[in-house]
Amino acid sequence: LTSRFDEHFRMNEQDVIQYVKEKLDIFEGEAALECREIGDGNINYIFRVSDPGTGRSVIVKHADVTLRSNANSRLTTDRSRIEAEALRIEGDLAPGMVPELYLYDPVMCCLCMEDLSDHANMRYALVEHRTFPMFAEHITDFLVNTLVRTSDIAMNPLERRQLSQRFVNPLCRITEDLVYTDPYTNKTGQNVVFPPIRDFVQEVLYDDVRLRLEAAKLKKAFLSNNQALIHGDLHTGSILVKADSTKAIDPEFAFFGPMGYDIGNVVGNLCFAWANGFVTIEEPLKRASFLRWVEETIVEVVDLFSAKFRTVALRNVHDVMFRTDGFLDWYLANVLADTAGVSGLEMHRRTVGDAKVRSLTSIQDEAKRALAEKIVIASGKEFIMGRENYLAGVAYVRTIKKVAEEYTHGSSG
Amino acid sequence: LTSRFDEHFRMNEQDVIQYVKEKLDIFEGEAALECREIGDGNINYIFRVSDPGTGRSVIVKHADVTLRSNANSRLTTDRSRIEAEALRIEGDLAPGMVPELYLYDPVMCCLCMEDLSDHANMRYALVEHRTFPMFAEHITDFLVNTLVRTSDIAMNPLERRQLSQRFVNPLCRITEDLVYTDPYTNKTGQNVVFPPIRDFVQEVLYDDVRLRLEAAKLKKAFLSNNQALIHGDLHTGSILVKADSTKAIDPEFAFFGPMGYDIGNVVGNLCFAWANGFVTIEEPLKRASFLRWVEETIVEVVDLFSAKFRTVALRNVHDVMFRTDGFLDWYLANVLADTAGVSGLEMHRRTVGDAKVRSLTSIQDEAKRALAEKIVIASGKEFIMGRENYLAGVAYVRTIKKVAEEYTHGSSG
Repeated sequence: LTSRFDEHFRMNEQDVIQYVKEKLDIFEGEAALECREIGDGNINYIFRVSDPGTGRSVIVKHADVTLRSNANSRLTTDRSRIEAEALRIEGDLAPGMVPELYLYDPVMCCLCMEDLSDHANMRYALVEHRTFPMFAEHITDFLVNTLVRTSDIAMNPLERRQLSQRFVNPLCRITEDLVYTDPYTNKTGQNVVFPPIRDFVQEVLYDDVRLRLEAAKLKKAFLSNNQALIHGDLHTGSILVKADSTKAIDPEFAFFGPMGYDIGNVVGNLCFAWANGFVTIEEPLKRASFLRWVEETIVEVVDLFSAKFRTVALRNVHDVMFRTDGFLDWYLANVLADTAGVSGLEMHRRTVGDAKVRSLTSIQDEAKRALAEKIVIASGKEFIMGRENYLAGVAYVRTIKKVAEEYTHGSSG
Repeated sequence: LTSRFDEHFRMNEQDVIQYVKEKLDIFEGEAALECREIGDGNINYIFRVSDPGTGRSVIVKHADVTLRSNANSRLTTDRSRIEAEALRIEGDLAPGMVPELYLYDPVMCCLCMEDLSDHANMRYALVEHRTFPMFAEHITDFLVNTLVRTSDIAMNPLERRQLSQRFVNPLCRITEDLVYTDPYTNKTGQNVVFPPIRDFVQEVLYDDVRLRLEAAKLKKAFLSNNQALIHGDLHTGSILVKADSTKAIDPEFAFFGPMGYDIGNVVGNLCFAWANGFVTIEEPLKRASFLRWVEETIVEVVDLFSAKFRTVALRNVHDVMFRTDGFLDWYLANVLADTAGVSGLEMHRRTVGDAKVRSLTSIQDEAKRALAEKIVIASGKEFIMGRENYLAGVAYVRTIKKVAEEYTHGSSG
C-alpha cells in the first residue's frame, strides 16, 4: 500500500498525471490525460492537467524545496500549507471568490485546485485596456468578507490569536524588504530604476526624509498590527477576471496584518493601469472610456469597501465596546488611511523595485514611460503623505489627475 | 525509576517537601524542611519551603486544574508554562529584576523559584506609606529592557512572530472583560461600586459615550497591537520591593501586546497610593513627604522610561527604516499615549470593578474613601480622554492635584 507519493520529490508532467489519477476522483482511470507546466513565476511549478475526452481539468500547484530559478536557494514548503489554509478560509468567508481547493497534500506540497483557465489574469488584461464593470463589486465583496470577518471586530479574541499562530509566515520578510524598505533607502542596491527617471527618484524618493518617516510608520503597522487575515499579495497578477467573475489566487503571503495592505494593493495596481492608459492610448474616445472605467473602479473599490464594511461590521460585531457610537467610523477611517499609505508604497516599489508591472514596463516610448512612472511615483507619495485625507475614492482620482496634469505640462512645456 | 510526580495531582505541604527534595539540588537529603502554603490569591498554590538548619529556602508555585475558590471552574495549567517562559525571557533581558527560576515542571505545573521573602509586596507597603527611592529607576529598567527588546524595534520580525506563538494567552480574556469592558458598561453586573459614589459612577463612567469610545479604541489596540512581550498584570501587587531591590513577579498574563499596558499599570497604581495618602495622612509633614515621593515617582517612571527608551531603542534598532529621523520619537509618543490611556483604565477598573486595591478599600472613613475614589476616577478619565498630551510625567501629577483640589472643595464646601 505504499505509493511513489509518500515522500516528497519534484514532479514532472508525467508524474503529475499519475499523481492526480491516484489522488483525485476527477478523472477516469483509463483517461488519456494531458499535462502542461504553465507556471511563469520563479517559485512554484504550476501544472494544468486535462482530459480532452470529458473536458475536465485541474490545476496542480507544486512546491519544491528550492527556488525554480536557483537550486541553491532553499525555501520553506510550509508556504503550501499556508496557501491551502488561507484558500479554505477565504473560500468559506467569500464563497466563489477563490479557486476551489480539491486537495492539499502536505507530503508532496501540492494544491490541487479548480482550473480557472476561462478567466484572464488581470495584470495582462489591463495592459490590453480591457475593462471589467463588475470588478469593484466583486473585489470589495472579497475584501470585506475576508478582512472584517477575521478581524478583532468579528472574531473571538482567543480564537483569533490561535488562528493567527497558523499564519506565522516567513514570506513576510520579502514584503518588509521590497515594499517597506528598498524604495526609500536603496540600501541593498536591488532597485532597478528606469534610467530617464533616476534623478527624479533620487530627489523624490531616496532624499526625502519626511517620506521615509511615513513609510517607517507604515512598516511598523505591517510588523505589529495583526488586524485581520490578509491575502498579503493582492496585486492584479493575483486576480483572475472575466465579465461576470473575479477570483483572488495565490495567497501564499497570507498572515494577520493590516487590512489596508490588501485594499491598498488593489488601488495601487489600478493606478498603474490609469497611468498606462493615460500615456499610451492615442484614440481619444478609447482613452477616455478606459480612463473613466479605471477612475470609476478606484472610486468604487474605496467607496463600496466602506459601505460594505459598515454593513458587515455591524452584522458581525460581537463586542459591546465596539458597538459604541463612532467606533466603527474611527476604525474604518484608520483602515482607509492605511489603504492610501499602502497604495503609495505599492506604486513606489513597482516602479523602482526589482518586481515590476507590465503596465509600466510594456510602454515602449521612453518619454511616455518616464511620464507614467513619474505620475505613479508622485501620486503614490501624495497618498502616503496625506493618507488621513483619503476617506473617499474620489480623492485618489483627483490626486492622480492633478499630478498627471502637472507632469504632462512640466515635461511637455 | 517511576516517581509520584510523573502525573499531575494537587500537592499538599508534605508532598511539596518530598517534591523539592526529589527535584532540586538546594536541600540536603536528610534536612528537616519546613513548608507552608502562603498563597492569598484564588488561583494558584504558593508554598515556601525552608531549611532552618542552612537558612536556604525556595518558593514552589503550583497550579491545579481548577480554581482554588471553585472546584468546578477549570483553568488551563498552560498558564504555568507561559509564566515560566516569560520569567526566563524577562530574567535574560532585565537581569536581577525577576525571581530566579530554578525549575519549571510541566507535569506537576510547578515553578520552583527564588524566595524573595526579604522583599515587601508593594501593594501592602504603599498602604503603610512606605517609600522606595530606587523604585522608579528599577522599574523603568525592567520596563524598557523587557518591552523594547521584545518589540518590532529590536527583534527580527519572523523570530518575533514565532516567539509570539508561545504566548497565545487565554488569560487575556480576563483583562478584556475586567479592564476594557465592565467599567464602562456594567453589562455583566459584576461591578462592585462603593455606595456613596454610585451616582457619580453612573454619570462619569457609564453614561459618557465619549469615554466609552476612547476605551473601545484602547481595547482594539489591546486585541491587535502585538508590540512587545508585556508582563500583562504589572500592578503593585505583582511587584516586590525593598530599599535596594525591585522584582516583578507573576507574569502569567504575559503576551504580545501594547507596551503602554505595563507602564500604565505602574502609573495607575501609583495614583491609588497618591489618593490614599492625600485623604488619609493627617500629619502635615508626613503627608507632604509621602505625596512628594509618589509624585516624584510618577514623574520619574514616565520620564526615565522615555529617556531609557531612547537609549535602548537606539542601541537595539536593527531596521534601517526605523533609524529614520523622528521615527523613535513618534513611536515613543504613541507608547506614552497608550500609557496614559491604560493608567486611566486601571484606575477605573480598580474602583468600580470586582478586583479592588487596598489603597482604596482600606480607607475607613466613608467620606474620605468617596473623595479618594472620585479623585481616582476623574483623574483616570482625564488621562484617557487627553492621552496624547501626557508626554511628560509632570502632566499626570498636575492632573491628579488639580482634580483633587476641585473635588476637595466641591465635597467640603
